[in-house]
Amino acid sequence: MTVRIGVIGTGAIGRDHARRINHVLGGAKIVALSDVNKASAEAVRQDIAPDAKVYDTGEELIASSDVDAVLVTSWGATHEQYVLAAIAAGKPCFCEKPLATTADGAKRIVDAEVSHGKRLVQVGFMRRYDAGYVALKQAVDSKIGAPIMVHAAHRNPTVPEQYVTPMAIHDTLIHEIDVFRWLLNDDYVSARVLFPRSSARSHAKLKDPQIVILETAKGTIINVEVFVNCHYGYDIQCEVVGEDGIARLPEPMAIQMRLGAKLQNEILTDWKDRFIASYDVELQDFIHAAAKGTASGPTSWDGYVAAITSDACVTAQDSEGDAVAINLPTRPSLYN
Amino acid sequence: MTVRIGVIGTGAIGRDHARRINHVLGGAKIVALSDVNKASAEAVRQDIAPDAKVYDTGEELIASSDVDAVLVTSWGATHEQYVLAAIAAGKPCFCEKPLATTADGAKRIVDAEVSHGKRLVQVGFMRRYDAGYVALKQAVDSKIGAPIMVHAAHRNPTVPEQYVTPMAIHDTLIHEIDVFRWLLNDDYVSARVLFPRSSARSHAKLKDPQIVILETAKGTIINVEVFVNCHYGYDIQCEVVGEDGIARLPEPMAIQMRLGAKLQNEILTDWKDRFIASYDVELQDFIHAAAKGTASGPTSWDGYVAAITSDACVTAQDSEGDAVAINLPTRPSLYN
Amino acid sequence: MTVRIGVIGTGAIGRDHARRINHVLGGAKIVALSDVNKASAEAVRQDIAPDAKVYDTGEELIASSDVDAVLVTSWGATHEQYVLAAIAAGKPCFCEKPLATTADGAKRIVDAEVSHGKRLVQVGFMRRYDAGYVALKQAVDSKIGAPIMVHAAHRNPTVPEQYVTPMAIHDTLIHEIDVFRWLLNDDYVSARVLFPRSSARSHAKLKDPQIVILETAKGTIINVEVFVNCHYGYDIQCEVVGEDGIARLPEPMAIQMRLGAKLQNEILTDWKDRFIASYDVELQDFIHAAAKGTASGPTSWDGYVAAITSDACVTAQDSEGDAVAINLPTRPSLYN
Amino acid sequence: MTVRIGVIGTGAIGRDHARRINHVLGGAKIVALSDVNKASAEAVRQDIAPDAKVYDTGEELIASSDVDAVLVTSWGATHEQYVLAAIAAGKPCFCEKPLATTADGAKRIVDAEVSHGKRLVQVGFMRRYDAGYVALKQAVDSKIGAPIMVHAAHRNPTVPEQYVTPMAIHDTLIHEIDVFRWLLNDDYVSARVLFPRSSARSHAKLKDPQIVILETAKGTIINVEVFVNCHYGYDIQCEVVGEDGIARLPEPMAIQMRLGAKLQNEILTDWKDRFIASYDVELQDFIHAAAKGTASGPTSWDGYVAAITSDACVTAQDSEGDAVAINLPTRPSLYN
Repeated sequence: MTVRIGVIGTGAIGRDHARRINHVLGGAKIVALSDVNKASAEAVRQDIAPDAKVYDTGEELIASSDVDAVLVTSWGATHEQYVLAAIAAGKPCFCEKPLATTADGAKRIVDAEVSHGKRLVQVGFMRRYDAGYVALKQAVDSKIGAPIMVHAAHRNPTVPEQYVTPMAIHDTLIHEIDVFRWLLNDDYVSARVLFPRSSARSHAKLKDPQIVILETAKGTIINVEVFVNCHYGYDIQCEVVGEDGIARLPEPMAIQMRLGAKLQNEILTDWKDRFIASYDVELQDFIHAAAKGTASGPTSWDGYVAAITSDACVTAQDSEGDAVAINLPTRPSLYN
Repeated sequence: MTVRIGVIGTGAIGRDHARRINHVLGGAKIVALSDVNKASAEAVRQDIAPDAKVYDTGEELIASSDVDAVLVTSWGATHEQYVLAAIAAGKPCFCEKPLATTADGAKRIVDAEVSHGKRLVQVGFMRRYDAGYVALKQAVDSKIGAPIMVHAAHRNPTVPEQYVTPMAIHDTLIHEIDVFRWLLNDDYVSARVLFPRSSARSHAKLKDPQIVILETAKGTIINVEVFVNCHYGYDIQCEVVGEDGIARLPEPMAIQMRLGAKLQNEILTDWKDRFIASYDVELQDFIHAAAKGTASGPTSWDGYVAAITSDACVTAQDSEGDAVAINLPTRPSLYN
Repeated sequence: MTVRIGVIGTGAIGRDHARRINHVLGGAKIVALSDVNKASAEAVRQDIAPDAKVYDTGEELIASSDVDAVLVTSWGATHEQYVLAAIAAGKPCFCEKPLATTADGAKRIVDAEVSHGKRLVQVGFMRRYDAGYVALKQAVDSKIGAPIMVHAAHRNPTVPEQYVTPMAIHDTLIHEIDVFRWLLNDDYVSARVLFPRSSARSHAKLKDPQIVILETAKGTIINVEVFVNCHYGYDIQCEVVGEDGIARLPEPMAIQMRLGAKLQNEILTDWKDRFIASYDVELQDFIHAAAKGTASGPTSWDGYVAAITSDACVTAQDSEGDAVAINLPTRPSLYN
Repeated sequence: MTVRIGVIGTGAIGRDHARRINHVLGGAKIVALSDVNKASAEAVRQDIAPDAKVYDTGEELIASSDVDAVLVTSWGATHEQYVLAAIAAGKPCFCEKPLATTADGAKRIVDAEVSHGKRLVQVGFMRRYDAGYVALKQAVDSKIGAPIMVHAAHRNPTVPEQYVTPMAIHDTLIHEIDVFRWLLNDDYVSARVLFPRSSARSHAKLKDPQIVILETAKGTIINVEVFVNCHYGYDIQCEVVGEDGIARLPEPMAIQMRLGAKLQNEILTDWKDRFIASYDVELQDFIHAAAKGTASGPTSWDGYVAAITSDACVTAQDSEGDAVAINLPTRPSLYN
């Protein structure tokens, strides 16, 4: 069976996912496209999916009997409505982060999916599909003993002018928030934020770097440096300290060179290159599950918890050093 | 267009390539299968390609108008006949190594393809598609200056009892023979073999390790340690020394652990894991070219040169330390 | 000139320093020994310093006109009295940590030295003499831009039964407390302690690991993991994040091996091996300064600040998560 | 006992050894100096050894009853005569490489020392005292099984204009020639040299790089790249392949930095920095043995074998690719 996929939102990421599905991955094809900017959808049709139909609205696309499954890659503020529509239509739906722009919005999706009674939503937390994190999880699960601490860093060389303090949580830390829950098989109970002096490369509305400290239900403490003006590269670091030893996320593959009095490996500078391979894997996983009428990978619940945790972290930014409690509702059995 | 592919030879590698084409890669599907052991072809049909037809012979499969392109993954001794038949039928053909069991056989394929006037054959030298080698080539081409020396090693933890001295060339070094020509954009002019004392883990008919020294037309000297009883792991090392610096093939991705008084990364022990990802890439390349009725990647000529070079290396094994000349015929313009 | 040195306290460290001075270093010789256990001093005389005289008390040793300079390597509780006596006698004095068992005791030493008007005391913070830290300081001073954060770890494989929670500060973190002030050329303004769940290898009176967070006057935030039951080795990690890049303390020299399917380097397990070379360097520095009638290296003031900071960290252990202010008196000009 | 040392030859290395003995090491002092350029000896006296006496000739210095032991750090062509004189005087003698400028000269020293009946000579092969090589030897002896191959490199960024092809052996490879015999506890039976095309940075009288292949009595094959225009740094590499695994010489200690999109460690460019610490250790060893009236470390025999081996390598340069036999005389029992 070939899964017939419709893409809502044909900007950079939507276009790239369309390319993956039609040219890289097996088992699916793009049959439908939609974008508020219709010319954008037309362009993707022409370049990548000549057999696809362009729809006026995302809702029409979702409703079409030609469409088996939906990719929501539109502007974040529209995610909730399309995901809810897909659930209402009983169609598997891959939604880029954020699942919704508020925790309440995410909760509405969880509630709808629970009412539906079967998983339909996969959230685009691609790091869970990264070969490095997968290998790290294996080491955490089987080699280093029960985890006690995590030391991590999320560093960008620079950010646009409009990037302000809370975005360090919503746009940047959000990936760590999701991936550590999965890595540790644990939930958060509190968040705390510390601010060193800001980098000279930052600006008045951005305290940068930040140190976010998360505590989990099992008592693991995670400290994450978020530094978005680190200048030297895009760098994701993660070290898990367990009872018996320590495991570290691999550096991205790079050629070691001896050159100009330096033993050197290149460091990436563009975040888009860092987890590029994991997009293929997450979408292949979506296709496989969609072929069976369901979804796997990161759930609506994961998206909802990420939203609650993000909110707590932003609150913690406003009372530096204080622990802000993270109280999660009971997890519906659908997500066990 | 979906390329309709027939697979001749449904052993381990044929089955695995069928899985890739039907479940991992885009743009092609398995429509035909054939094997001397018909039950094997049937099993692959059942497990992987239910819509495929099983043919009695490779020749019938090649002749079928349902088949656009052919994978030759049968026993090595049969490669030549199937590749020649595919060329005769004007169909793109991916052939696992060796292209033929003799240099003369490989030459017959080259001649047939040249007569045909268009590339149809891709040889299964997958290392050219490995992300590590691709990055290394980029560094060699642009960072370290003109290459002068290569230091390399091909190590297996152990080999079966029937593995004897010449197999270190035909079955093991063969990959380095191809990949270094590509990496250096150069040809060989001589081969030399040195034998240290043999490992205690070797046996009477296998001198192991061996050091093979290849000289190129541009004057680069390559020394390759071939050690197939190295015990500790499957390990491929390659370091290119250029005028300005040195570039080294990356180690496979591994989790760095601190455990039991050791800072440690796991080393692979099974060769099948080492270049696993490159099989996907080489077949995707085959599919893309086949969709246009041609072939790309390693050519028949590359297969022929590999055969000539292997023969010279085996000759060199019989006169330890002496340089054996490698005289290549003129390269047909089809392969420029 | 040969500096004539008297050693007060001839236990393991006193004996080892005596050996250094008589057998490894130039410019000094051991002429006097003293220990509460006179047999111990006699044994060192016999084994290492046959020309030395054994004194009944440290005070007599200090007073002797044969003695130019003093090493205080006795039991910690006696350090203060001997250092004060050495200052009173106007003799250079090397004192192992702690300078005194209380901040008040350390202050009395500072006051005495300030009254004397010239430096006479070097405290045994040997890390400042470690080649790795020296190189790290050079990188921090000249390569990575102004420091903003430090991520560090101090891990022991195991500790004796009597090691309890505050000792993680007084006996373990004390080295980081001193070395980071020197590394960053900065002072502390607050300390905070976080406790993850304790390791299963710990016991009721020891919360282990601990995360100590120090903030400096310049706004740098330092997080140090102190984990004394880490099991896998004795491991000191330190990474300084600056405006332009990151510098990391080198791992101790180790042979990289490929063995048993692992790429591995040995990790030390005994703390005594980690900074072994720095003891030679610090004592050589002491000898050079003592030859001129003064002292260099870590000062009484550094010992005093370390005591104040340690006290703040222990207070912070009792109110987990809260920042405890560190208020330093004005630094006497002698120490600028 | 303080060993009273006389230094013959007060150029850069003689001056530096004098400094070591008077300011860094214990157990010895410089009492005598001599140089063909008397002003040079006077300058060292003034700067480093004010109590020393300056002698008109090396022979007078050796004969003086004030001198217990001798350092020969004069021009290479004069080594033989001074070492022979020291042996005749029955005084321990440290001689920088080469022991003599010809194998015959070295043999005369061996014969003299054997006649004397006790070791008196230490040759300045300092690598045996380098902490990295010492650790490597330990791994070779106890961890990786019996050695079968060695892959090594000796790279200089550049050499002076007058450096010609044979100097790659006499001045550069000489260190590997000695250290591998010690590392493997083995002797050479043949040498072979291969020349890749020369680097564009080389000149007409220097074939650079060279690959020297040495075979040992136990059947180990060693390949050493000698590349003295490698441009990027001074770099010494050595990897020993044993029956069970591989051990590698550590890189010199360096700070790992993340800077400018590179994960980087500095590589040394000046050979003088590479083994700087080992000079202290070798001289301390000399002092300890000299205090007992004898010598330890690299022997006259080692110097003689190095000379014979160097000659064979230079012969091998003249018949590229051919194995040149290395026939050693019987080792006198003094050197067992």
